[in-house]
Amino acid sequence: MILFAGDNNSGAHPRILEAVAKANHGRFSSYGEDPWTEEAEALLRAHFGETARPGLVFLGTAANILCLRTMLRPHQAVLCAETAHINTDECGSAESLLGCKLLTTPSSDGKIDLAACARLLDNRASEHHAYPKVMSITQSTECGTLYSLDELREISAFCRKHDLRLHMDGSRLCNAAAALGVSLKALSADVGVDALSFGGTKNGLLYGEAVIFFNESIGHEFKHARKQLMQLGSKMRFLSAQFVEFLKDGLWLENAQKANRAAKRLAEGISGLEHVNFVQPTQVNALFVRMPDNALAALAENFYFYVIDPYDQAGFPPGRPMIRLMTSFDSTDEEVDALIAAVRALGKKS
Amino acid sequence: MILFAGDNNSGAHPRILEAVAKANHGRFSSYGEDPWTEEAEALLRAHFGETARPGLVFLGTAANILCLRTMLRPHQAVLCAETAHINTDECGSAESLLGCKLLTTPSSDGKIDLAACARLLDNRASEHHAYPKVMSITQSTECGTLYSLDELREISAFCRKHDLRLHMDGSRLCNAAAALGVSLKALSADVGVDALSFGGTKNGLLYGEAVIFFNESIGHEFKHARKQLMQLGSKMRFLSAQFVEFLKDGLWLENAQKANRAAKRLAEGISGLEHVNFVQPTQVNALFVRMPDNALAALAENFYFYVIDPYDQAGFPPGRPMIRLMTSFDSTDEEVDALIAAVRALGKKS
Amino acid sequence: MILFAGDNNSGAHPRILEAVAKANHGRFSSYGEDPWTEEAEALLRAHFGETARPGLVFLGTAANILCLRTMLRPHQAVLCAETAHINTDECGSAESLLGCKLLTTPSSDGKIDLAACARLLDNRASEHHAYPKVMSITQSTECGTLYSLDELREISAFCRKHDLRLHMDGSRLCNAAAALGVSLKALSADVGVDALSFGGTKNGLLYGEAVIFFNESIGHEFKHARKQLMQLGSKMRFLSAQFVEFLKDGLWLENAQKANRAAKRLAEGISGLEHVNFVQPTQVNALFVRMPDNALAALAENFYFYVIDPYDQAGFPPGRPMIRLMTSFDSTDEEVDALIAAVRALGKKS
Amino acid sequence: MILFAGDNNSGAHPRILEAVAKANHGRFSSYGEDPWTEEAEALLRAHFGETARPGLVFLGTAANILCLRTMLRPHQAVLCAETAHINTDECGSAESLLGCKLLTTPSSDGKIDLAACARLLDNRASEHHAYPKVMSITQSTECGTLYSLDELREISAFCRKHDLRLHMDGSRLCNAAAALGVSLKALSADVGVDALSFGGTKNGLLYGEAVIFFNESIGHEFKHARKQLMQLGSKMRFLSAQFVEFLKDGLWLENAQKANRAAKRLAEGISGLEHVNFVQPTQVNALFVRMPDNALAALAENFYFYVIDPYDQAGFPPGRPMIRLMTSFDSTDEEVDALIAAVRALGKKS
Repeated sequence: MILFAGDNNSGAHPRILEAVAKANHGRFSSYGEDPWTEEAEALLRAHFGETARPGLVFLGTAANILCLRTMLRPHQAVLCAETAHINTDECGSAESLLGCKLLTTPSSDGKIDLAACARLLDNRASEHHAYPKVMSITQSTECGTLYSLDELREISAFCRKHDLRLHMDGSRLCNAAAALGVSLKALSADVGVDALSFGGTKNGLLYGEAVIFFNESIGHEFKHARKQLMQLGSKMRFLSAQFVEFLKDGLWLENAQKANRAAKRLAEGISGLEHVNFVQPTQVNALFVRMPDNALAALAENFYFYVIDPYDQAGFPPGRPMIRLMTSFDSTDEEVDALIAAVRALGKKS
Repeated sequence: MILFAGDNNSGAHPRILEAVAKANHGRFSSYGEDPWTEEAEALLRAHFGETARPGLVFLGTAANILCLRTMLRPHQAVLCAETAHINTDECGSAESLLGCKLLTTPSSDGKIDLAACARLLDNRASEHHAYPKVMSITQSTECGTLYSLDELREISAFCRKHDLRLHMDGSRLCNAAAALGVSLKALSADVGVDALSFGGTKNGLLYGEAVIFFNESIGHEFKHARKQLMQLGSKMRFLSAQFVEFLKDGLWLENAQKANRAAKRLAEGISGLEHVNFVQPTQVNALFVRMPDNALAALAENFYFYVIDPYDQAGFPPGRPMIRLMTSFDSTDEEVDALIAAVRALGKKS
Repeated sequence: MILFAGDNNSGAHPRILEAVAKANHGRFSSYGEDPWTEEAEALLRAHFGETARPGLVFLGTAANILCLRTMLRPHQAVLCAETAHINTDECGSAESLLGCKLLTTPSSDGKIDLAACARLLDNRASEHHAYPKVMSITQSTECGTLYSLDELREISAFCRKHDLRLHMDGSRLCNAAAALGVSLKALSADVGVDALSFGGTKNGLLYGEAVIFFNESIGHEFKHARKQLMQLGSKMRFLSAQFVEFLKDGLWLENAQKANRAAKRLAEGISGLEHVNFVQPTQVNALFVRMPDNALAALAENFYFYVIDPYDQAGFPPGRPMIRLMTSFDSTDEEVDALIAAVRALGKKS
Repeated sequence: MILFAGDNNSGAHPRILEAVAKANHGRFSSYGEDPWTEEAEALLRAHFGETARPGLVFLGTAANILCLRTMLRPHQAVLCAETAHINTDECGSAESLLGCKLLTTPSSDGKIDLAACARLLDNRASEHHAYPKVMSITQSTECGTLYSLDELREISAFCRKHDLRLHMDGSRLCNAAAALGVSLKALSADVGVDALSFGGTKNGLLYGEAVIFFNESIGHEFKHARKQLMQLGSKMRFLSAQFVEFLKDGLWLENAQKANRAAKRLAEGISGLEHVNFVQPTQVNALFVRMPDNALAALAENFYFYVIDPYDQAGFPPGRPMIRLMTSFDSTDEEVDALIAAVRALGKKS
């Protein structure tokens, strides 16, 4: 069985584990007063610019919630695409932990719809409705698509115009930067993101994500909020050591490029086939495709992937079930080619 | 200026005020240990059946939230129509006070879509998604429409089959009972409602709604929850005295019939006109109609009503702005006829 | 049975009911856009000064929570006396609705202990502890005592020095003003209160309290928060009309004076008795006294009052059970004299 | 500088890191569907008995909150010693994430006071007060003391009698079991604990704690709650692999014994000195002692430890500042002896 179910099916990159092992000596102050944390934060500033105020947490949902927490009051709302991870895959953390409402826009490609957002701002004056205060977008999106720099600038301008803070769920920001050939800063600070969730786990860490605030008027309660929301690890050096290794000489980019390349190889290998229908363009490390039911069943014998019922998840065009094929930093050419061969073989039969 | 904006533009029925005045003598135990509260609760049981366990609160949003509170844990979700008052007009109280997610179904007439609900149950097994546990419907709906008894039974059966509790927002249940010619119990206990918000304010009270639990496995935390959620009035006798007057000899029905009749008179008076388009059937005390923009502007000079932008509110078919014309227990024939005449006159001009 | 259990055992002052009845004509915009609300707010500004930004709610717990809500984030804490109503008698509303911690100081007279507060500020720098941000005091206190103007100024200076906002629970502020012979403004705006809960129910209203913000940097979310926390009544005119009557020509003061005078008469009538031990000085409308158990039992046959177990409630010195005897605006000399006679008679027997 | 500030100043035990490294191969289903998680859960059941239903989380505050979450509704309260970690060191997580009130008993040794608890149950009938539903105790306590098995049985019987659930914060349960010479089960399942936080981080893990439910009527929402409260790691195998190594052949006990032995050696080495005053008995791996101010200052030049202001933390007898000296699984005899020598030398000078 070869797994293409998610980029978190992979373990950690060997260099990450070595960095953790190297940090495992002696006793150090806990909760972040250690040299690794200092270095990790310095590296994050180096990558994201001097306005970046970073902090580390255990997982992606936590990064999202902590970003939002510092920008919202309970009577306020978040604008997001209906496909957003915060809306569909976090078991209601936003509603439960922030008390806030998510106001969603329809989306067939994972991107937010600014015209729909504009309409959701109409009721802002009335106390009978939750007040939209933050927009949250995902880069790359949950549908494996990318916002271009121009799209990001347009979104950011919309937010400025309408007094909205901009949150970016960058759980796969490395993949986006690799695909677009730009820096991490170019995708965040430079386009006006106020608060960023910066992912590490899906790109080769054992565990760990960063929260980064760019707007100096927000984020001041981060340390207390991180503790209260149960994301302040005592042996912080092990989380920080991972980020140091990840960021110090390009491992983040190398891993993301490998994952993207594997997806591209896969997409090229199965494109042009009559029985394979691409639902989304392959821009980072995920393919969303439809195949006949019998083909899916046959494929599932040797490959593991998510089947997404058309009704399961908002945003995806209805119809025949769709599968998500996801590559990772440790996907090998052999694995990809095996999948290509299997898909191609099914076409002949069906 | 004649107001047709809402049934809460009216004051209280004179008999209600007299009942409050009659209760204003002497000193009595506060917080509900008084004879009026005992009598009000007995009358609620008389109307809703012996399984009914009632409690009184100040307003409708509170009745909804207290019903839901006793049936939900923060990781659970409520299924409702996108038009539901709890979703659109309570400033995110459900999310903030319960921590719960609302999962909505598209709706063009204010009613819930069971097929869409069924699809929302697909993800129940996975901890990544909020777990649907309660269905909430509104009778009569926010679109001025009615569920028939058969529809209610079908909904209730669906809930039983899928281990969902059924909440009914009955802020206008009296209007529904009056229109359908059935008892309050027939619309609630008899069709399998688990928890009911029973409205008084919109039907002639100064203030006051009831929460009624029918399912003996729920609602046990009501008293503590009412106190914590700031709905336990100290001089409870004045709230209870209103419900006694409302329920003891049919004032609730008389008021609802008057409001419904006024709406019917209005609907008949302006139907068949080329420049008036009915968006919903007129089943209780509200009309939803479209008219040309210049007609609306002219009408607004002498009448006050809500203009609903097609994008403002989920569920309503898009297009030209729509207005809501709402009658009340104290709407007079003269007022209705004045509006009919004005609408008809506009047709001639436009 | 004569009730001395609470000032909310009384009904409404007749003038209040008449004002409600007078407001009951015609149709008016709901949710506060009516002339009574405009007038009530103007009168509140007249009494509390031009910096006062008032809003009306249904009950005292709600006034407290809404004041605090606008000044706190969930990782912050409130400093208060352990006897504070928000700590002991609101079923955990503060913790549940604000998510905030209450940090209490020991108190034998209902007043806050500034030295203890100072120690609670020691941990402010550390994210491991909730961050004290608001101080809440009650005037007059839950023990029937009064802060002097000097004490209030000292508290306010402490708050300014330590970047704490000052909340005053003024559920019985009228009694305090009457006892001290000063204006409502002198006890709030003039001594540096940031947010005030101003009570009406215990002093002759049917229902109703006001929230008043004095500090221009806070309170901006009040309208949305009031709606979300279920305190925005639709037929607001009836709440506002009560405040108009209460404030327009001194009814608030007259009622408070009557209640205070009755307590004073009672205290004088039973002071100097060997079997009656005053636990607190009688400064407003409540007496806290101890009597032998058999005396209490005999008294309870004809009078209703709260017996406070020494362990029941924080702050009260332990020992023999204590009773609270509370007078109200409608306490008559006959009632008070009957109680005096009964207490005196018990002394002869015991 | 030698650190005695906390048992989480240490890194991970080398065997733990090796286990993580061994698990780092191939791709596996995320979120706990992997063989390591299965084995870790089996080992937890082996240690805690067949009634144990375990789940893993990142940190100790989260273990506590998740235990409590499954046993509480927002209007309910937790009884605990004022010294409890959930009360003093979790930045208000319980209040914020559960909405619940903590009702504390005075404590000079970290243990709960059952007589004080009994008094806190007096108000249970009244909806005006939060309803005590859970008791939470810490074993070993935050003061470095131990409950005996008899004390635990008495506590558990009290809870059964009063319909209270019993939570144990076992962040240092291994140290307690090592000190008392009993099994983990003997300290939890066998004495009637309903839900346990079982600590790993302080005893040699990289990160990780377990939540264990013993009472079959609770804990069913754990999986959803863990996800919603942001404690479901995607690469769960690495957390589980640590617990496998910890539990499979006694590493948990060996580590705890080492830490306890170091504390004992230290206590013996500095006992009987005139300038050293033991505030608590040394029962596990922490010493709480007082020394003259100048001695503390001198000691702090070469050793790092927490100074606890007498007013800083509830429960500790007031007076001169106190220090906490904490040993860990990796404390060496040399380090301990160096501290002993330093303390002894200070005595000669002072």
